[in-house]
Amino acid sequence: MFYHDRELQYKVRVEKPNPAFARMLQQAIGGIEGEIRVCLQYLFQAWGNRGPVKYRDMLLETGTEEMAHIEMLATAVALNLEGAPTSLKDEMAKDKMIGAVMGGMDPRHFLSSGLAAMAVDANGVPFNGSWVVGSGNTAADMYANVMAESTGRVLATRLWEMTDDPGMKDMLSFLIARDTMHQNQWLAVLEELGGVQGIHPIPNSFPQSQEVQDFNYAFVSTYINSGDGSTPAGRWTEGQSIDGKGQFHILKAQPLGGEPKLAPPVPEGHAQTEQMTLTDTIIGNIKDTLS
Amino acid sequence: MFYHDRELQYKVRVEKPNPAFARMLQQAIGGIEGEIRVCLQYLFQAWGNRGPVKYRDMLLETGTEEMAHIEMLATAVALNLEGAPTSLKDEMAKDKMIGAVMGGMDPRHFLSSGLAAMAVDANGVPFNGSWVVGSGNTAADMYANVMAESTGRVLATRLWEMTDDPGMKDMLSFLIARDTMHQNQWLAVLEELGGVQGIHPIPNSFPQSQEVQDFNYAFVSTYINSGDGSTPAGRWTEGQSIDGKGQFHILKAQPLGGEPKLAPPVPEGHAQTEQMTLTDTIIGNIKDTLS
Amino acid sequence: MFYHDRELQYKVRVEKPNPAFARMLQQAIGGIEGEIRVCLQYLFQAWGNRGPVKYRDMLLETGTEEMAHIEMLATAVALNLEGAPTSLKDEMAKDKMIGAVMGGMDPRHFLSSGLAAMAVDANGVPFNGSWVVGSGNTAADMYANVMAESTGRVLATRLWEMTDDPGMKDMLSFLIARDTMHQNQWLAVLEELGGVQGIHPIPNSFPQSQEVQDFNYAFVSTYINSGDGSTPAGRWTEGQSIDGKGQFHILKAQPLGGEPKLAPPVPEGHAQTEQMTLTDTIIGNIKDTLS
Amino acid sequence: MFYHDRELQYKVRVEKPNPAFARMLQQAIGGIEGEIRVCLQYLFQAWGNRGPVKYRDMLLETGTEEMAHIEMLATAVALNLEGAPTSLKDEMAKDKMIGAVMGGMDPRHFLSSGLAAMAVDANGVPFNGSWVVGSGNTAADMYANVMAESTGRVLATRLWEMTDDPGMKDMLSFLIARDTMHQNQWLAVLEELGGVQGIHPIPNSFPQSQEVQDFNYAFVSTYINSGDGSTPAGRWTEGQSIDGKGQFHILKAQPLGGEPKLAPPVPEGHAQTEQMTLTDTIIGNIKDTLS
Amino acid sequence: MFYHDRELQYKVRVEKPNPAFARMLQQAIGGIEGEIRVCLQYLFQAWGNRGPVKYRDMLLETGTEEMAHIEMLATAVALNLEGAPTSLKDEMAKDKMIGAVMGGMDPRHFLSSGLAAMAVDANGVPFNGSWVVGSGNTAADMYANVMAESTGRVLATRLWEMTDDPGMKDMLSFLIARDTMHQNQWLAVLEELGGVQGIHPIPNSFPQSQEVQDFNYAFVSTYINSGDGSTPAGRWTEGQSIDGKGQFHILKAQPLGGEPKLAPPVPEGHAQTEQMTLTDTIIGNIKDTLS
Amino acid sequence: MFYHDRELQYKVRVEKPNPAFARMLQQAIGGIEGEIRVCLQYLFQAWGNRGPVKYRDMLLETGTEEMAHIEMLATAVALNLEGAPTSLKDEMAKDKMIGAVMGGMDPRHFLSSGLAAMAVDANGVPFNGSWVVGSGNTAADMYANVMAESTGRVLATRLWEMTDDPGMKDMLSFLIARDTMHQNQWLAVLEELGGVQGIHPIPNSFPQSQEVQDFNYAFVSTYINSGDGSTPAGRWTEGQSIDGKGQFHILKAQPLGGEPKLAPPVPEGHAQTEQMTLTDTIIGNIKDTLS
Repeated sequence: MFYHDRELQYKVRVEKPNPAFARMLQQAIGGIEGEIRVCLQYLFQAWGNRGPVKYRDMLLETGTEEMAHIEMLATAVALNLEGAPTSLKDEMAKDKMIGAVMGGMDPRHFLSSGLAAMAVDANGVPFNGSWVVGSGNTAADMYANVMAESTGRVLATRLWEMTDDPGMKDMLSFLIARDTMHQNQWLAVLEELGGVQGIHPIPNSFPQSQEVQDFNYAFVSTYINSGDGSTPAGRWTEGQSIDGKGQFHILKAQPLGGEPKLAPPVPEGHAQTEQMTLTDTIIGNIKDTLS
Repeated sequence: MFYHDRELQYKVRVEKPNPAFARMLQQAIGGIEGEIRVCLQYLFQAWGNRGPVKYRDMLLETGTEEMAHIEMLATAVALNLEGAPTSLKDEMAKDKMIGAVMGGMDPRHFLSSGLAAMAVDANGVPFNGSWVVGSGNTAADMYANVMAESTGRVLATRLWEMTDDPGMKDMLSFLIARDTMHQNQWLAVLEELGGVQGIHPIPNSFPQSQEVQDFNYAFVSTYINSGDGSTPAGRWTEGQSIDGKGQFHILKAQPLGGEPKLAPPVPEGHAQTEQMTLTDTIIGNIKDTLS
Repeated sequence: MFYHDRELQYKVRVEKPNPAFARMLQQAIGGIEGEIRVCLQYLFQAWGNRGPVKYRDMLLETGTEEMAHIEMLATAVALNLEGAPTSLKDEMAKDKMIGAVMGGMDPRHFLSSGLAAMAVDANGVPFNGSWVVGSGNTAADMYANVMAESTGRVLATRLWEMTDDPGMKDMLSFLIARDTMHQNQWLAVLEELGGVQGIHPIPNSFPQSQEVQDFNYAFVSTYINSGDGSTPAGRWTEGQSIDGKGQFHILKAQPLGGEPKLAPPVPEGHAQTEQMTLTDTIIGNIKDTLS
Repeated sequence: MFYHDRELQYKVRVEKPNPAFARMLQQAIGGIEGEIRVCLQYLFQAWGNRGPVKYRDMLLETGTEEMAHIEMLATAVALNLEGAPTSLKDEMAKDKMIGAVMGGMDPRHFLSSGLAAMAVDANGVPFNGSWVVGSGNTAADMYANVMAESTGRVLATRLWEMTDDPGMKDMLSFLIARDTMHQNQWLAVLEELGGVQGIHPIPNSFPQSQEVQDFNYAFVSTYINSGDGSTPAGRWTEGQSIDGKGQFHILKAQPLGGEPKLAPPVPEGHAQTEQMTLTDTIIGNIKDTLS
Repeated sequence: MFYHDRELQYKVRVEKPNPAFARMLQQAIGGIEGEIRVCLQYLFQAWGNRGPVKYRDMLLETGTEEMAHIEMLATAVALNLEGAPTSLKDEMAKDKMIGAVMGGMDPRHFLSSGLAAMAVDANGVPFNGSWVVGSGNTAADMYANVMAESTGRVLATRLWEMTDDPGMKDMLSFLIARDTMHQNQWLAVLEELGGVQGIHPIPNSFPQSQEVQDFNYAFVSTYINSGDGSTPAGRWTEGQSIDGKGQFHILKAQPLGGEPKLAPPVPEGHAQTEQMTLTDTIIGNIKDTLS
Repeated sequence: MFYHDRELQYKVRVEKPNPAFARMLQQAIGGIEGEIRVCLQYLFQAWGNRGPVKYRDMLLETGTEEMAHIEMLATAVALNLEGAPTSLKDEMAKDKMIGAVMGGMDPRHFLSSGLAAMAVDANGVPFNGSWVVGSGNTAADMYANVMAESTGRVLATRLWEMTDDPGMKDMLSFLIARDTMHQNQWLAVLEELGGVQGIHPIPNSFPQSQEVQDFNYAFVSTYINSGDGSTPAGRWTEGQSIDGKGQFHILKAQPLGGEPKLAPPVPEGHAQTEQMTLTDTIIGNIKDTLS
């Protein structure tokens, strides 16, 4: 269960409120790279954790911390909205500046929330629960977490670049530092689980002998001129595979599966009659195709 | 640009059509772990690729291959739907079997598509473009790709376990093999980009001196009894950080940010009067709180 | 900021795991009546709270408690999924029971989460951030909260009726009790804010003199035979209005606004030529209409 | 069934078309606080009404009226879009004003609808059917309706503040008046159903003896320093509960549920081997955790 | 504006309530082929109609009728749910039948709506406002309407096939008849607007001289073996085009656009350093690719 | 299966990058009128095609071509974003122009994708798989395709009007030409399937004798004054129906279905007691209503 404090995890100051920046910050709250996603993702992974209990405990720790990050960002949004324009009266004509600011802010920050953060991204698209990944396979989940913290840190550094408000830069410097730690933290679990060669291919509990052997370490090239030496060479085209269990090689894409054939429509599905009855015209057309 | 063949990349046979399995396969088509996602993800990453062109070329290759995987799975869905029940007439009463099958299939496979695959997941939830991740940072994108192929391969092995149809098992063995390769392929790019110590923290182009230094390698424990020796120990609590740029250590969570203070509501936002006017009652309540 | 415990707020026991009931419980996690919604709703209201700080503090308290309720339900889902069927192999033919169970469970509970809870509702539709209501008007928000706890308690009592597992009934009896308290709690704020007559119409900070006076306490009847004495009579058709500021009365619906007239399409919007050029045919048609 | 008139319910005039205001008005059409939601909500409640038929009749009346409100707002959007810029040609360079206007309008108002309203909110997020609440419990539904009319009226007053177009102000004054009536109307039903003490806890048909008695009137404080006298006091912490069925009191949050224990992963779910096999390393780690 | 009657447009009787059929009917209410979509689509087209007013009037007529169809179907859902199972107690074990029925019904029909219709499809996916098409071009809109009535009638005939309840068959026979009329109605507008040759290409107000002339009547074949005589021949490969403004012919797909070249990442976008700095390794890789 | 080329289908040049136009172009990528939709729609129709195989082949051809159109537009977005502002530092104050540009662009084009296209529309709303229509009825599907190419071409001509960049105008002229062809192509299939009289009503495999005969060619007027000669006359009110199978005529809307009657709530659904128990007050109210 959970407890709270009335104070923030780290200082949130805004010297020059900027409603356009408030909108940008929403991406870090309700966007796919944002904090609601990682908070729920780590907590759901903890709650569904099967296997060593230490991972459950660690996921609970960081999931709980992320809740405090949502709180910091939500506070930052509210502070950036103070003094925001709340009117379109004539200002389009009189003051281009206000028009520009209005154009750059999320109108729902005034209309829907009365100058407060919402559970949406920078375009007002609501947070979506499908982003909360917990597969039951700890290694897959750790990659989902590394990915979330990587796109999250990229986002935070871009927000840091966008603003010259010292309070906002400071807050973001804290969040960027936490993303650094969290990337390392999930990588540490991957190391503990066996390192790249131990954990891949994920899931490592599936017997690789069941894979179609010609294709599990082959780079399939669909390039239309493939085979003329122009396939992009890289670490992935030769040498031992990264998981240490195969040799990379190149394979020109070939259709091995023949043309699919489906049965005609069932009557009660009410396709057009022409799809079911082979009229002379249709038969002729088919013959043309086949000849 | 793109070309096509009329044939499939690999055989798709169904010996015992099973409409419930058709529904399951939809997860691998239109689900977050599915093939539409990876297809569009690799292609959008290619189309927006800035930096070494070889990665653009490689992403195009595999994005194009994934299109063929959607095709195989869509064909598998159509074949599994042949012979599916298309009626509720009395069978609830007469034949429990048909009722059960009907309960296990996606009704829209009959109602909406006439026994064909759709761009939805196993619960009929539509594919969502937000799942297509391309951040402009190649390392972050590669982790998104490893994660997609990891959850994708986990899904494919679960589908493999669910069925004993030899044709479906064979098709899935091919797709599982491709996921093995693709996991390795994206890991190979990460190796080429510098390996774990070279690429992290992502983005590695942000100066770490700007991070708040006390927090970038600290495991923050929010556990209410933290400090009594019960924090979960692991690779992430001591020793050199995985990126080689810091030392892991434990920090008990502490509120450093004070209590947030927001301005009162602006009049034109039409909060309740009581939020704006400090009546005696309200003042009394506040005093109670403060005392 | 937030802290956690490794223990649950209340006991979660499952004597007879039931994967179909696991699916039902998802409605109380990721559905519109569920705990993710109230958790985020109370927290976002707290973080954006402008006005008496005591309401911020109280919202933080209960938002934090709701996080523990998500945890209890997620645990209940995982426990109900233990022993769930993970195969379609032949069982449709051999064992109708398993088929029925499989039909009644969410297939993504196996395919996507490996027997764990997800941030979705009972049909696998993801949680949606648009459900998190925080308007900046405390009275409106309190009604949103009463409504959430009312539909939430209705849901919980229905789940209670569905199961005869004593552990599940006990857990639900706890959650139902909490919903009782929370309904009362938000009602208490409404009382403190002035009671029904003090708070309505919400927002009470808008001058009612600006309303079109003939319509603010009139029950408008759109019934086609309205006026023949058949309008449904009730508390809302006569007597003092509930907010004490007007008299209820009935008004037969009348069109007061005339027919709307829009300008013709602009050329660069590329409507059909016939929408822009008044050909003889079109003119004729229009004349027919007007005559 | 339904009939229509070609005229509007109330005048809709726009003296100074403003495409940015057209975008704002979309929130009142397709947003969660908007008219499509209340229209469908009241109608679906009517169509599913079980119990006294008078409520079905009344819901039909007001649901039908709301349809006319969508129509008024859609007309207002179309009129505000007349004269909107439909080009980006050089104007970013030549005329900052047009750029600002373009930035403030919804581009789909030109691109997708040709200067007409759409079923979306002020950010172009589509109307979502999940917002249509009808629980089958009349009291819960009435609160959903009061809440919808409260957030709706708050929205309308904010729109009223944003504009100084007399036609728009007049139209909004009408809609604000109707929201006043509708708040009172749903409150009137609640009074008729028994008043606060009669209807709560909702549903009142569930026997309260089945609730866990220690928790149904307790304010649970999750504040980490709770118990030191700092819990926020209010109407909800002492005295008779609002529903008259209990006494409010404060309870410090305590974990009563112990640590949850889940079974290990099932083999066919293909977690990582390390989650299933207790290797020496894993066992060591677990021992470390437990010691 | 709108008026209502308390009676239905056509009889809705259910002799043998079937909760699984109730779920199927939801597709015709809240699905993309359903009645909420056409209702709102016709009304929004009417409200935004620019051009001959007769089309506005006609769209209002049929949009209003569709509201009555939602009502009929919502009533049919409620009637089919009467007697539905509302419990999972033991019946999975004792009575396979009830389990099967429960598996086939939408659990939210009990949990969320208390045995009433909702604004969702047959899988519980909510109605989505993006489906409401109104482009401002009357011809494009009429095709959207023909398409909606075509997929709608296909759906209705499939529902008709699924049931042998005489009341449901009768209701569907009415709705199928209305779809027949509505298909014809929108086709009649297309005829009035000029017929196929007059209206195409839509929009017909764009000067065709601005099109790239080699491609506007060419069937582009992406078939990898195209040109060997195997391109699928049909009405679309030779003869006058359907709009009478060109001649169909076949063109083998050729890349005419060269390879795209994007600038390197901007520093503040924080791509990886390796994307921006051409290290020796990277340069080597690029050389390999180019050689 | 599929192959690719590294070159574009047609030239994509941008002389004056414009980030606001990049946002507009997103509508043609991830919007409902966009290329992801048609690409997946044609491919899913091909993969599920039952009936003459020539249509499968043709759908594969054009679906594959559309993939190249997404690629062209994604490239155009990336090129238009070059030089886009990536900062809010002071420019709101110093340079209104940058503020305006920032207001007009999609902030996620910098924050989420690092100056690249995404799978979203012009408002950042993600592509939605529900837009991919494939009904199993070829005629219905062809109308869905004509509709998609019609709204798509309307969109493309509007984009063409918005820009004076010669490169963008050229690219759009190519795409507009392809839309012309594709409209004709799907119309050609409709002609081949029998022409308007042969294919309607869709599905033509349902026996029209099963329709309720009085309603299948009647224009039902819901106009409240219908019958006074004011019903909008048109091709759809008299003469032979377009499908040649009936005579158009006008019918004044009449309620034929009586008032719907639903059973009282079931106890375990926990409606309010007042909905279930007929207290004296309730009975009195009902009597009032009935009298």
